[in-house]
Amino acid sequence: MLLKYEKIAHDIHTFITNHQFKAGDKLPSVTTLKEKYEVSKSTIIKALELLEHDGIIYQAQGSGIYVRNARNDNHINVFKTNGFSKSLNEHQLTSKVLKLEEITDIPETVMQELNLSKGDSVYYLERLRYVDGNVLCIEYSYYNKEIVKYLNTEITEGSIFDYLEQNMQVKVGFSDIYFNADQLNTNEAQLLKLEPNDPCLRYHQTFYTTTGIPFDASDIVFHYKNAHFYIPSKR
Amino acid sequence: MLLKYEKIAHDIHTFITNHQFKAGDKLPSVTTLKEKYEVSKSTIIKALELLEHDGIIYQAQGSGIYVRNARNDNHINVFKTNGFSKSLNEHQLTSKVLKLEEITDIPETVMQELNLSKGDSVYYLERLRYVDGNVLCIEYSYYNKEIVKYLNTEITEGSIFDYLEQNMQVKVGFSDIYFNADQLNTNEAQLLKLEPNDPCLRYHQTFYTTTGIPFDASDIVFHYKNAHFYIPSKR
Repeated sequence: MLLKYEKIAHDIHTFITNHQFKAGDKLPSVTTLKEKYEVSKSTIIKALELLEHDGIIYQAQGSGIYVRNARNDNHINVFKTNGFSKSLNEHQLTSKVLKLEEITDIPETVMQELNLSKGDSVYYLERLRYVDGNVLCIEYSYYNKEIVKYLNTEITEGSIFDYLEQNMQVKVGFSDIYFNADQLNTNEAQLLKLEPNDPCLRYHQTFYTTTGIPFDASDIVFHYKNAHFYIPSKR
Repeated sequence: MLLKYEKIAHDIHTFITNHQFKAGDKLPSVTTLKEKYEVSKSTIIKALELLEHDGIIYQAQGSGIYVRNARNDNHINVFKTNGFSKSLNEHQLTSKVLKLEEITDIPETVMQELNLSKGDSVYYLERLRYVDGNVLCIEYSYYNKEIVKYLNTEITEGSIFDYLEQNMQVKVGFSDIYFNADQLNTNEAQLLKLEPNDPCLRYHQTFYTTTGIPFDASDIVFHYKNAHFYIPSKR
């Protein structure tokens, strides 16, 4: 169920699309929108923040609200940290689980990254992910078992974050993303149905709860032809 | 010259570094910081927003201010839209201008992207950019001459954005970034001293003024071994 400000954000977005607004076109002021929707100023501000975050609009200090270029169909919006599900929601995202196991023999870098001690255990997950049936990426993920208390194949075939938020009271906060272009190794190439040494985008992402506890360390290898990214960036 | 809130942000950052705070460590409250620095609450809030934007801290609603993982030396922070100069400021960034010319024969896609009409002219610029002497990327840029009224080789060897802000009263607002991994063509490989078909990261970036006028459309081809990226992402 959408909250009031989310409904308003959705409505403004539809308005922009229907009126074929272009980048740089000016939108009505906060006061006008507040009167139109008969809500408080703070509700309008929250709706606008959501639209700004998603790259739909831009607010120029003291000058007004402007439309941004929204040419981002088929692109993964990097700002939507809730995995890809939310950013590709007009496409069908499916997953094939290659491996899911609970392990205590954790690589040293993951121990450090997830702030773990000797004897702690994690879930280790390998998945292939598909958009509209085309392979998007391979994911190698470690989940801190202190936070992610239970996973099974059924859960990991869907949106893990939806499950965590709805059933585990885990609040996903922020993430650090590191990325670079690289070459595929033989195993990766086989999984992505490409050739060894073909290009790929490597992504290393750490997810934190809202209180800053790292709970997911993932290496993601993207198919260079099927994965395109978009970042709405601001000063 | 730094503004008051920028000085405070810098001071808090130094404090975090000196005390070897880790991701998830809690920082003093806004009230405590306000008393410590003897400034208004809004100055502290602006300082914290700057630190959050740069991925140094994270503010959890109703819960406090936390340190993030700051493992981003040598990484290009994608959020700093002011070109790379600002994000790699502990490194020496240099540029070699390959071509600079004023043209009216503008590709159709650029015409659309920069909202140009027939007869308008742009500056077309090709640069190689280096970090600490290592080649980082090739840049192919089109600048809308309505906004960027004058460029010469000397200016384009340095930070064009600093020049625009300081001498041209252009306020750089936001940017759209599209990227994907790809293969180098022969010409690009030669410029980057790599082999054809080696991987690269392709970046297409459009920069807008604070009032939403697109003024710079750039294609950037990054050297896959020398360019590493960082994004501090939040919900």
